[in-house]
Amino acid sequence: MVQYKARLDTTFAALSDVTRRGVLEQLGRSDASITDLAQRFQMTLTGMKKHVSVLEQAGLVTTEKVGRVRTCRLGPRRLEEEAAWIEQHRQLWSARFDALDEVVEDLNRKEKAHASRKRR
Amino acid sequence: MVQYKARLDTTFAALSDVTRRGVLEQLGRSDASITDLAQRFQMTLTGMKKHVSVLEQAGLVTTEKVGRVRTCRLGPRRLEEEAAWIEQHRQLWSARFDALDEVVEDLNRKEKAHASRKRR
Repeated sequence: MVQYKARLDTTFAALSDVTRRGVLEQLGRSDASITDLAQRFQMTLTGMKKHVSVLEQAGLVTTEKVGRVRTCRLGPRRLEEEAAWIEQHRQLWSARFDALDEVVEDLNRKEKAHASRKRR
Repeated sequence: MVQYKARLDTTFAALSDVTRRGVLEQLGRSDASITDLAQRFQMTLTGMKKHVSVLEQAGLVTTEKVGRVRTCRLGPRRLEEEAAWIEQHRQLWSARFDALDEVVEDLNRKEKAHASRKRR
């Protein structure tokens, strides 16, 4: 359970940066070297290495160094737990707001009944 | 587009903490004061206020102060954009790994064909 929570912490933190999400989108289309990614996102090699390292620690990217080139590809984690957490939250959210809607409708009904009694 | 990206940054950062996710789960069940939340998560009032403030800035929580009590409830954002982003990533991920499976199967077929030619 602790590991599950730590995994969610790490993944959501990895996803909280527009460049890192862009890297994942890019690797969803094709593998790329750190140099390719740095050029595409107009960033220094050092800056891109840091972002890739965060993604790698979250299991979202794997890298392999052959000669002088480090190639990045999508990693083993496919955001199943994150999708499940968000879905559960959306269901709770809907249930809470449905309950609120019912309270408001109930108040409206009572107000109408009260108004029609006054008109008689 | 910039706003959309900034919203995703803010929300994913808000979700990257186990206590903040716990607060959202709690508010999915019932509204709660900052004091309730601080007690439940064994945290100082100041610490809980900071967490609630992060959630409030992300639109995930709204708060209302009546007298000395600040009540927290689920906010207007229901993580639709975040769910959509994750779903898109999962689809890209599956497509990439299906393509990889095909390459591996193709290699296996060629190897078998080669082995059977050698046996003849």
